[in-house]
Amino acid sequence: MEAQEQEEQEQLVTPWEVSAEKGGKIDYDKLIDKFGCQRLDQSLVDRVAGLTGRSPHVFLRRGVFFAHRDFSDILDAYEKGKKFYLYTGRGPSSEALHLGHLVPFMFTKYLQDAFKVPLVIQLTDDEKCMWKNLTVEESQRLARENAKDIIACGFDVSRTFIFSDFDYVGGSFYKNMVKIAKCVTYNKVVGIFGFSGEDHIGKVSFPPVQAAPSFPSSFPHLFSVKDDLRCLIPCAIDQDPYFRMTRDVAPRIGYHKPALIESSFFPALQGETGKMSASDPNSAIYVTDSGKDIKNKINKYAFSGGQDSIENHRKYGANLEVDIPIKYLGFFLEDDAELEHIRKEYGAGRMLTGEVKKRLIEVLTEMVERHCRARAAVTDEMVDVFMAIRPLPNMFN
Amino acid sequence: MEAQEQEEQEQLVTPWEVSAEKGGKIDYDKLIDKFGCQRLDQSLVDRVAGLTGRSPHVFLRRGVFFAHRDFSDILDAYEKGKKFYLYTGRGPSSEALHLGHLVPFMFTKYLQDAFKVPLVIQLTDDEKCMWKNLTVEESQRLARENAKDIIACGFDVSRTFIFSDFDYVGGSFYKNMVKIAKCVTYNKVVGIFGFSGEDHIGKVSFPPVQAAPSFPSSFPHLFSVKDDLRCLIPCAIDQDPYFRMTRDVAPRIGYHKPALIESSFFPALQGETGKMSASDPNSAIYVTDSGKDIKNKINKYAFSGGQDSIENHRKYGANLEVDIPIKYLGFFLEDDAELEHIRKEYGAGRMLTGEVKKRLIEVLTEMVERHCRARAAVTDEMVDVFMAIRPLPNMFN
Repeated sequence: MEAQEQEEQEQLVTPWEVSAEKGGKIDYDKLIDKFGCQRLDQSLVDRVAGLTGRSPHVFLRRGVFFAHRDFSDILDAYEKGKKFYLYTGRGPSSEALHLGHLVPFMFTKYLQDAFKVPLVIQLTDDEKCMWKNLTVEESQRLARENAKDIIACGFDVSRTFIFSDFDYVGGSFYKNMVKIAKCVTYNKVVGIFGFSGEDHIGKVSFPPVQAAPSFPSSFPHLFSVKDDLRCLIPCAIDQDPYFRMTRDVAPRIGYHKPALIESSFFPALQGETGKMSASDPNSAIYVTDSGKDIKNKINKYAFSGGQDSIENHRKYGANLEVDIPIKYLGFFLEDDAELEHIRKEYGAGRMLTGEVKKRLIEVLTEMVERHCRARAAVTDEMVDVFMAIRPLPNMFN
Repeated sequence: MEAQEQEEQEQLVTPWEVSAEKGGKIDYDKLIDKFGCQRLDQSLVDRVAGLTGRSPHVFLRRGVFFAHRDFSDILDAYEKGKKFYLYTGRGPSSEALHLGHLVPFMFTKYLQDAFKVPLVIQLTDDEKCMWKNLTVEESQRLARENAKDIIACGFDVSRTFIFSDFDYVGGSFYKNMVKIAKCVTYNKVVGIFGFSGEDHIGKVSFPPVQAAPSFPSSFPHLFSVKDDLRCLIPCAIDQDPYFRMTRDVAPRIGYHKPALIESSFFPALQGETGKMSASDPNSAIYVTDSGKDIKNKINKYAFSGGQDSIENHRKYGANLEVDIPIKYLGFFLEDDAELEHIRKEYGAGRMLTGEVKKRLIEVLTEMVERHCRARAAVTDEMVDVFMAIRPLPNMFN
């Protein structure tokens, strides 16, 4: 209890709550130390470039994915011709995704294309039904709607299996859930996730559900002959607790530990103190926002590091460390040279906040419009195919 | 903690442990009070006889099934033409069943025949995998072996669905597990089942698995058009905690509370202080015991209420209250007149322990031989049919 109270005054990062130290930003170095993961350094980024023969993704080049567990082992094996599979997921708690939700999927698509590996995507409709006040039916409906947004990110249907827990839990997957649950005490999950005695037992039962996809035997229709395939999980670092637990358990049940590659959080428009909040629509840009919405939100809410008067701005320049338009451009402006130019000009006061915001609005509007077009092209039949329990014809080619 | 310690000095009845007050017998009246169930009185037994047009089962006539919850509501509805379904189960932790294991199945078969209703039988291989040190595969093998013994009890294949959790958990069943889990706090399961923080989370996750079959929507292939069907659960009273929990939850998720009809425990050969122990093979008669085994076990281990010398026995008679052969005959000797005769003669000292044991050996040998013949006739194909996910053609006729 005391430890937790102390932590609340400092920063708090769990799968359900992310908040920075009072008045500050998330300290990712501290998080790496606390969680015990490794920093994803330049030499690893260079290795990815070398192994895949392509320029590393913006999110790698710019440190959005900044931490890992055993990613170097995955690369060592890949170098020797041993493939792996990717696992990521989403808790379908809302109709529309915001830009932060897209980050792991955009990155996972890049990994799938670059390494040419199969991918499983878990939609934890059971989790959202248990955590939020959602019915089973509503959670399932949201899972399917979210699947359309995920498919719109461009995943290769011949290498991708999307499943909802309500549909897929059972059989080999359930057997792995039981094997995992046997290895984790209640005290342990309380230590990891901070549950209390008044929490319902659905919460206590859930961690094995999120752990099970880390093991290829949970997918006999995909990996029946590749039972020792390694798993790489791209996710935001708030999911790390689930996979710390999974990695603890893995050797005890005869499985490989999953590797992880972990991102920082996509900041709220109001500033980089945590993740965006689903309860405040003005804290985020949604993939359903119109061009007008985007323009309005960026101009009105995006926290600026510019000075309070043009005179001061020209004199002192913008504080890029707290400037949200610059952060957002760091995620989504592909062109390194242009980004560097803007940072330099803006930081020196030669560019004004309005100009930077204008460029950001262009970038996001184009990106959101592209996403909407792609999503509109996703039919129910395509969702059915992605979610069908089937072999993946093109898994390792 | 204190409450539990105090309880350990008194009697303890949980799904995993049954022990009487030090030196005494299980006090079933106290159990009814403590659990809050109702006594199954003669008027209910008479109603069953009237409604089914047959003589009530020995286990009803002699009070083996002695307690219930809402059984009278089931009969009220039945009287008005509304059927119900039966649910019972077994945790497959051992190769061979003993006579105590057969009691609920023999009674359930009688109920199925008398009321002409469908039946689901849950084999909790997941539970045994988690509680005992069994692998998934071994638990599944035991489930199938036990299914053969259950089928040998004579269930009607056109009205019976047997399932193992490892095979069947998923889909509608899993959705009900989640709905149930949402309504039960950790503190609540600790209060009901006495788990500790060092118990693994598989244990905490299991109660919803045993609860789910109480609701017809867990079996869409059987009851899709009978979603409001009532459920009647015949079981030993140590399972009551699971269904107390289930009955608490039911109205909160829009379902009927299951009704229960509960038996006392089949006593160990050594005396009526609890259930039989799987770890001591000499505490029970197994369905795999030979005629010689049965004779030997009864003669050597069955606790006798007879006096220590023939002279004293002729003078004082046997103490029927503690006499195991008389108890066992009470379960398995069909003929009421003969049982009454033996009780009278033995109680008066005119019959000797050896004579009573001889009759018991005859009764049990015949019963076990009949069971073995029936079990030998159960083929793997028959098991497959009973366990197939299929509509039951003859459910309500």
